[in-house]
Amino acid sequence: MSGMKFHIGIVGVSGYGGGEALRICAAHPTFEVVYVAGEGSAGQKLGSRFPSLAGKTAELVIQKWDPSALLALDVLFASLPTGESKAALAAVPSSTRIVDIGGDHRFVDGWQYGLADVWPEQVRQSTRIANPGCYSAATLTALAPLAAGQMIDPASIIVDAKSGVSGAGRGGGNTYGYAEVNEDVMAYGLLKHAQLPEITKGIAAIGKMNPTVVFTPHLIPMTRGILATCYAHGDATTEQCLAAARKFYAGRPFVRVTDTPPHTKWATGTNLVFVSYAADPARKLIIAIAVIDNLGKGAAGQAVQNANLITGQSETTGLEGIAVWP
Amino acid sequence: MSGMKFHIGIVGVSGYGGGEALRICAAHPTFEVVYVAGEGSAGQKLGSRFPSLAGKTAELVIQKWDPSALLALDVLFASLPTGESKAALAAVPSSTRIVDIGGDHRFVDGWQYGLADVWPEQVRQSTRIANPGCYSAATLTALAPLAAGQMIDPASIIVDAKSGVSGAGRGGGNTYGYAEVNEDVMAYGLLKHAQLPEITKGIAAIGKMNPTVVFTPHLIPMTRGILATCYAHGDATTEQCLAAARKFYAGRPFVRVTDTPPHTKWATGTNLVFVSYAADPARKLIIAIAVIDNLGKGAAGQAVQNANLITGQSETTGLEGIAVWP
Amino acid sequence: MSGMKFHIGIVGVSGYGGGEALRICAAHPTFEVVYVAGEGSAGQKLGSRFPSLAGKTAELVIQKWDPSALLALDVLFASLPTGESKAALAAVPSSTRIVDIGGDHRFVDGWQYGLADVWPEQVRQSTRIANPGCYSAATLTALAPLAAGQMIDPASIIVDAKSGVSGAGRGGGNTYGYAEVNEDVMAYGLLKHAQLPEITKGIAAIGKMNPTVVFTPHLIPMTRGILATCYAHGDATTEQCLAAARKFYAGRPFVRVTDTPPHTKWATGTNLVFVSYAADPARKLIIAIAVIDNLGKGAAGQAVQNANLITGQSETTGLEGIAVWP
Amino acid sequence: MSGMKFHIGIVGVSGYGGGEALRICAAHPTFEVVYVAGEGSAGQKLGSRFPSLAGKTAELVIQKWDPSALLALDVLFASLPTGESKAALAAVPSSTRIVDIGGDHRFVDGWQYGLADVWPEQVRQSTRIANPGCYSAATLTALAPLAAGQMIDPASIIVDAKSGVSGAGRGGGNTYGYAEVNEDVMAYGLLKHAQLPEITKGIAAIGKMNPTVVFTPHLIPMTRGILATCYAHGDATTEQCLAAARKFYAGRPFVRVTDTPPHTKWATGTNLVFVSYAADPARKLIIAIAVIDNLGKGAAGQAVQNANLITGQSETTGLEGIAVWP
Repeated sequence: MSGMKFHIGIVGVSGYGGGEALRICAAHPTFEVVYVAGEGSAGQKLGSRFPSLAGKTAELVIQKWDPSALLALDVLFASLPTGESKAALAAVPSSTRIVDIGGDHRFVDGWQYGLADVWPEQVRQSTRIANPGCYSAATLTALAPLAAGQMIDPASIIVDAKSGVSGAGRGGGNTYGYAEVNEDVMAYGLLKHAQLPEITKGIAAIGKMNPTVVFTPHLIPMTRGILATCYAHGDATTEQCLAAARKFYAGRPFVRVTDTPPHTKWATGTNLVFVSYAADPARKLIIAIAVIDNLGKGAAGQAVQNANLITGQSETTGLEGIAVWP
Repeated sequence: MSGMKFHIGIVGVSGYGGGEALRICAAHPTFEVVYVAGEGSAGQKLGSRFPSLAGKTAELVIQKWDPSALLALDVLFASLPTGESKAALAAVPSSTRIVDIGGDHRFVDGWQYGLADVWPEQVRQSTRIANPGCYSAATLTALAPLAAGQMIDPASIIVDAKSGVSGAGRGGGNTYGYAEVNEDVMAYGLLKHAQLPEITKGIAAIGKMNPTVVFTPHLIPMTRGILATCYAHGDATTEQCLAAARKFYAGRPFVRVTDTPPHTKWATGTNLVFVSYAADPARKLIIAIAVIDNLGKGAAGQAVQNANLITGQSETTGLEGIAVWP
Repeated sequence: MSGMKFHIGIVGVSGYGGGEALRICAAHPTFEVVYVAGEGSAGQKLGSRFPSLAGKTAELVIQKWDPSALLALDVLFASLPTGESKAALAAVPSSTRIVDIGGDHRFVDGWQYGLADVWPEQVRQSTRIANPGCYSAATLTALAPLAAGQMIDPASIIVDAKSGVSGAGRGGGNTYGYAEVNEDVMAYGLLKHAQLPEITKGIAAIGKMNPTVVFTPHLIPMTRGILATCYAHGDATTEQCLAAARKFYAGRPFVRVTDTPPHTKWATGTNLVFVSYAADPARKLIIAIAVIDNLGKGAAGQAVQNANLITGQSETTGLEGIAVWP
Repeated sequence: MSGMKFHIGIVGVSGYGGGEALRICAAHPTFEVVYVAGEGSAGQKLGSRFPSLAGKTAELVIQKWDPSALLALDVLFASLPTGESKAALAAVPSSTRIVDIGGDHRFVDGWQYGLADVWPEQVRQSTRIANPGCYSAATLTALAPLAAGQMIDPASIIVDAKSGVSGAGRGGGNTYGYAEVNEDVMAYGLLKHAQLPEITKGIAAIGKMNPTVVFTPHLIPMTRGILATCYAHGDATTEQCLAAARKFYAGRPFVRVTDTPPHTKWATGTNLVFVSYAADPARKLIIAIAVIDNLGKGAAGQAVQNANLITGQSETTGLEGIAVWP
């Protein structure tokens, strides 16, 4: 910490994840964004890319990423395309804590997996954090109480997830063009989505089990939000599941356990996760549901929560805002 | 048939299902709409409610429903709220064939369940048709080849469905208001949706099995379309599932079996169903996917297909149009 | 005409305008699509690009455009990016009638401007038709009765138009990405949009006047539809404007004059134009409104109307369908 | 001010304007919401209506509005349907400052019109503030520099505005149902919208002129945002208009003057207004554009800005957040 505020850098600031990190940091009471880098937007003032920014943050010039030229940063948020952060972050000095929003360091040695609602202490003691993927964040938060309590059969897990389009990042071109995404829904990545190994490892770590997961993501016509509907065999009743979740997440500020199925809109613009449960006794089947903002808990909100922890602050600093509704 | 065309009536014409029936019938070469009834819109000319209508159909006056005042209709399409069609249709003369788009007569004695892609001959020989529900139409078309081939464990079926908002009908008020449905997704009716018994009975009838189904519908921000993602245990490979479906639906004009996951938009404005399959050998789990237009194959398109059959015409008459895209 | 049907070609078939031309032609009773060309999609079967297509049209292979290799086509629809059709169409044999949906031949010698609702006879006698731009089609249809009747001051015309995203074509990439277009509206092309000269020339030709037009297009978050709100000085009352329009368009099958402001949704999927008028006596100002489907009357619907005329058929052949609603 | 924070009440909290006031106040450093009232939701805990709320605000019970039972409030935000606030607020004690977000007190004696970006000092000295309407806020902010500088002909003003659906409030029922609003745009309230007199009086007050305004609002398929495109005769160039606006709004924290046409999305979730200008010398016509979030600057953001002023605080307190993007 330099002077009164932590010095923050964001690489990948012109993407959706990096942009959301900027939005949260710009209103954060103890973070000051002093360095921003981006590929296509290098050379522009940050305020020309984010017209609602004001003050000296708006005057920052977006840099071409060069780790050797880094200022003395306290925390660097990295939001780079998959495959690019491993090399890009290797040269960052060890004195700079890193939260990697991208996918390259999840369950990689030397990096703590940043599912802070489940493992806050492990995060707090680390300086290299691999932020969970958006689908994984929703899925693991829903399933964690059941896995930790050995309430589900690890060989029976099915995750059917629905995501808004911003999860695909800015580079999608026509694939995510408005005219074709609007009024459309599709499944994709069947049985081989990039986040399947991460979900599997996460459940394994939480439940000390060896799960086999079926994961089916769907793209739906909205900008923000993920709803994960998870199915698994288990004997528990609805009330037992809800009670297990309430106990597991007692005191955790960002997880809300609800009796009724939550709406993604309850979380828009926040770092919250809403989870709910329903059990079908005739089938010994449990349904676990989670909703998040994919750019909040699924990316930048979670990243700031992690940054709060690794800088020794209260977890909720800068993350207290309520959802944008409607 | 009077003269050259069949005389058609539509009750519930100002709702979404009835309106789509009107849209299809207005372009149908052998159907002529001669009677329309609706609750809130009675007394208005049909053209004032459907401004794109022209000619004499536009001049029809919407009636207050009164079965005793019916003209000599060849076919009556009924699209009434659940619970209203049983009484309303009891007085219709037996010479008028009925296709009930509403839910009251599904799997009821005296009525043929109108899943015409599976049971065309049974439909052809009936005069009282209970049109399938929108979720059921998608689900049953996806699962029929697997159930008929005994390729799935009937105790393992999970259906996770995503629907556009028009499936809820016009009467939803604020629940389905734009500002709140937009940028939102939610699950609803967990374990107790009205179409769960219908789905169960449909699979039972197709597969001569006694299934236990878990059904989770979701509301997503689009007007038209349903995607049903179905999971069940089975040993078959992806290729075996696709081959079974291609064989089961050989010659059926409205069902398309695709190698890749289909988009709902492929079906918009049509009576088509696209089905696809993927099997996870590690889990002995099969994923069956179907997409439809919930107002097409899920309501009025299916209804016209049924009406074609019971009037002795080619199944595809008036239903050959390709999808509205983008 | 070869045998029973006209032989139709479409170049630019994988774009939105070309795709809509295909959709209409596939259901057209006297047109048979026998040739399709496209840039990115060459080599694919047409049915793989348009999954709802069936029959022999689905089996057509998309060609790389080569006018010297053309079959004996009766009509060629060209839907190419601005700047590409001039050269591309120069080599088409004179025996092939052309409807150019693109912008290169509007108000160019040797080509008839294809605003068929205003100039059907001139279109009927031509073999080279320049289809109006989408904004121009809406604007000119709204203003034509007023301009023809000298009811507006040509120096006072302001056109404020709102368009869905498909009007920008498929090539927009991130500019028209879902996540950024959704929940957004903007003005663009202020005072210099490409269709401004076309609108000006169109009003000049209809009204024998020398207008100065201000044109402000806006992009709104929907796929299809244009609403043009036009303002001009004039003494007429609302009723006089409506009466003038009813008289001007008497017998024209695709133009509907309405008392209340029309919705774009009334025209979705059709070749219709709805126009309405309101006059503010305190200001001697007239408001003229038109709504269209930008891919219907604004592109492919208009093109088929033109093709009907130049092949000597009834204008409405294949264009009778009512709007897709909701 | 009681203790450390101002005591805030919100009546109409379950509507969109009241809900946004709650969202802003819940994160406001010197405001504490201690009283909430609502019609349909009375008796519920606030947290059950706004699931992302936490802490003691979530525990507040929504009251049935009863001014005689009011606590000692420092500021009351009223967001009631048009026609209801006049009577409802008459009984509020004079010690409670009121910001009426509803329409009943605009340009009414005893109430200051709360266009704080133009009249901050007048607002600061008042205790009864009539918050501008959403269309008026956008329009007046765009036109104020031109009117104040006598740069436009007051007899020539045309305002063509585009609004998201939340502007219509929660009570719209089917009129604003998702299935019908989606993929639709329409004009409404031609020449007689409720905010026309307010716009006229606002321009009159700013420009000491007697304007005649034509105002055409449009409903477009998005939840939040207004874009107002204003046209008026004037000799100024684009640069002169931009310069006038930069000077007029110098030091005003919420108004941003931009060279290029702004997007509504730049303002989502904020109290910002972006204004831009373009002049057509051939026509001596000036285009003035403003974008806002209709629930921000168009309702609750503006209301909090006003509340900051009348409680003697910095105008930007609690309103510094940047836009939610994408």
